[in-house]
Amino acid sequence: MTQDLYLDKLEGVTIPPLSERSRVMPASPIRRLAHHADRARGRGVQVLHLNIGQPDIEAPEIVMERLRSYPGRYVPYGPSQGNVEMVEGFRCYYSKLGFELAPENIFVTTGGSEALLMTFLTLFNPGDEILVFEPFYTNYNGFAVMAGVRLVPVLTRCEDGYKLPPRAEIEERITRRTRGILVCSPNNPTGYVFSDDEWEMLGDIARSRNLFIISDEAYREFVYEGPTPARSALSLPGLEQQTVVVDSVSKRLSMCGARVGAMITRNTDIWKAALKIGQARLCAPSVEQHAAAALPDVPAAYMERVRDEYRRRRDLVFEAVSRIPGAVCRRPQGAFYLCAELPVDSAESFAIFLLEEFSLEGATVMVAPADGFYATAGRGNTEIRIAYVLELKELGKAMAVLQAGLAAYASAREASRKT
Amino acid sequence: MTQDLYLDKLEGVTIPPLSERSRVMPASPIRRLAHHADRARGRGVQVLHLNIGQPDIEAPEIVMERLRSYPGRYVPYGPSQGNVEMVEGFRCYYSKLGFELAPENIFVTTGGSEALLMTFLTLFNPGDEILVFEPFYTNYNGFAVMAGVRLVPVLTRCEDGYKLPPRAEIEERITRRTRGILVCSPNNPTGYVFSDDEWEMLGDIARSRNLFIISDEAYREFVYEGPTPARSALSLPGLEQQTVVVDSVSKRLSMCGARVGAMITRNTDIWKAALKIGQARLCAPSVEQHAAAALPDVPAAYMERVRDEYRRRRDLVFEAVSRIPGAVCRRPQGAFYLCAELPVDSAESFAIFLLEEFSLEGATVMVAPADGFYATAGRGNTEIRIAYVLELKELGKAMAVLQAGLAAYASAREASRKT
Repeated sequence: MTQDLYLDKLEGVTIPPLSERSRVMPASPIRRLAHHADRARGRGVQVLHLNIGQPDIEAPEIVMERLRSYPGRYVPYGPSQGNVEMVEGFRCYYSKLGFELAPENIFVTTGGSEALLMTFLTLFNPGDEILVFEPFYTNYNGFAVMAGVRLVPVLTRCEDGYKLPPRAEIEERITRRTRGILVCSPNNPTGYVFSDDEWEMLGDIARSRNLFIISDEAYREFVYEGPTPARSALSLPGLEQQTVVVDSVSKRLSMCGARVGAMITRNTDIWKAALKIGQARLCAPSVEQHAAAALPDVPAAYMERVRDEYRRRRDLVFEAVSRIPGAVCRRPQGAFYLCAELPVDSAESFAIFLLEEFSLEGATVMVAPADGFYATAGRGNTEIRIAYVLELKELGKAMAVLQAGLAAYASAREASRKT
Repeated sequence: MTQDLYLDKLEGVTIPPLSERSRVMPASPIRRLAHHADRARGRGVQVLHLNIGQPDIEAPEIVMERLRSYPGRYVPYGPSQGNVEMVEGFRCYYSKLGFELAPENIFVTTGGSEALLMTFLTLFNPGDEILVFEPFYTNYNGFAVMAGVRLVPVLTRCEDGYKLPPRAEIEERITRRTRGILVCSPNNPTGYVFSDDEWEMLGDIARSRNLFIISDEAYREFVYEGPTPARSALSLPGLEQQTVVVDSVSKRLSMCGARVGAMITRNTDIWKAALKIGQARLCAPSVEQHAAAALPDVPAAYMERVRDEYRRRRDLVFEAVSRIPGAVCRRPQGAFYLCAELPVDSAESFAIFLLEEFSLEGATVMVAPADGFYATAGRGNTEIRIAYVLELKELGKAMAVLQAGLAAYASAREASRKT
């Protein structure tokens, strides 16, 4: 279509069209309202960010120390699979979790983002299908578009506490093109943590239907109920060759901007394929790998302190949202997000209203409309995702803004209906 | 094919196959011999690396200073389009080059590598064709596989000094699917720098055939003959909306491992499409952007010193290779590479021989076989790429190793023919 359109005008001044991907690529619901936030700030309004999972907690001292004492006189390329010290850092870290890995099981990536993209590129052909439980981390959509794979959503429901649906409901979505199941526990955006029974069921489906399991475990340590760290897909028996864990130091070390993550797999064919793709992009950032290599040396007390802090924040946000008349949400067990169904006609309109038309004592909040966390059109339209990544005092203020904003939005809607 | 194979064994223990991309993705000729080099080092042999364009020159003090004084207590995500200070850094840098850009013309990427991948993803559909002059930077192949685009090679020849072929020879490769021309001047791997006439011809083809120009300008300042910095595709009239410059601080600041680059385009639709793709991967590395933001403040004397050093190295390497009987090469005008046709049956075998079976006074060299710099099968089989990124003394030693290695290789081949 675009091709013919383009050829018709070969001799004209038409600018060549961009790719189809550029059209279908979804804008991130986490970031697409950024210009509204800029406008709010332009009016002098403080914007409290609940839209992005950006920890505001200090990174471990040992990590920042290494960052500031980078020894080089220049910054050389490292090995495509990761700096030796960073690979060793992940190896020791996993050993402490009870998983003995070889260097050829670890591929250091430019954040968990690149680990996801490289996993998709390595495992799946254009047109292949991957099961994913919705709501899911919105950026899976972007990587799927880049790799040409199709995300096939299986719904989990707030009213069920985001538990996995019965096995039959999952299996009925499997077709001839299904090649994998993409999971995330602790979950972004719901905070749900899989039970052992759920892991066993997933493992059984993957084994019997010969599917890859791609497990995003960036929030492993962020568990507020039950055992921590959360169970890893690496523990599933008989799936050693068809499991890829997507990891990241972003949340664990408060280093989102460092862009250091990893693909973890015991299937060395996957590692070798990743190496070919990885060589094309040369390497992950050298300085930040040097810093993050301290991963296994971060004191356990650091992570406990962080977990306690997030637990308090979770409690505050959950209590506040629960008190909002007409809002529906579940107490998240992990990660640092909460999904809430709000009594609004459109979460997107409400989010824009908060930024463009509302403030409480000089402040407003930015939330992520949850529609982008679903692959099914129409779902999530009245839901938001809240990232509780502010200090308690600010978070309390944010909740007050949210509550007052909802009332103001309802009045504004009522008024516009009457006119 | 693989699909059916896979379904046949649904109930068996078959591991699901990897993607077709994993199979066709070429291994990097720059890095694929790394394990042979490891073995040489294992035998106690010093390996002089001529295989990878990794500058060994000190980064500007102002940049390393900023790196070591990163102000944060943690490392947050930055904007997907780049940290404000880094965007401003590129803006000022381009302003000094005579190009006035807006922030919406600059998209900061994770190295020039990501800029290339994002450009391909943004502009081209799977199956689209891009003209590229071979030999070309080998990793273009990798990004082409990832984006599903087809690189259509147009040959430039050592005996012509790597000048562009006549216009008709270029235009005859244009088909209904051709959407762009990918260029690199100063060139990796030939060191060739386009003349004004060549730029005008390319611009004219792009205008008349409505093609994008993607211009990899990572080596802009590395020019040893003629005006420096080298001319930019941004200077081509009437192509503002269909030009994307791929930039990188890797070579310019001796910061290859920093992974900071940029897509530069005056077409804000491209920028907006890149933003959607860029939001999925969140951001480029924060700390290293903080450091590289000093780009416009790097003293001109730094770059002059670097250029003088590389000019001396180029002269040494060119003289040495020219003296090798049967070797063919041209004096490179820019970048820091030299392509040489060698009197060997296979450049790959020779490169492996150097690492596995040869040393001179305890040292050997690692070179990149040039076949991977061609898209046409069979081309470059007896060529190597040399990156002159060692100090003069080491470089002299490397040339002696190369020369002696060629003689030893010829003898070894002769001996094996006789037995």
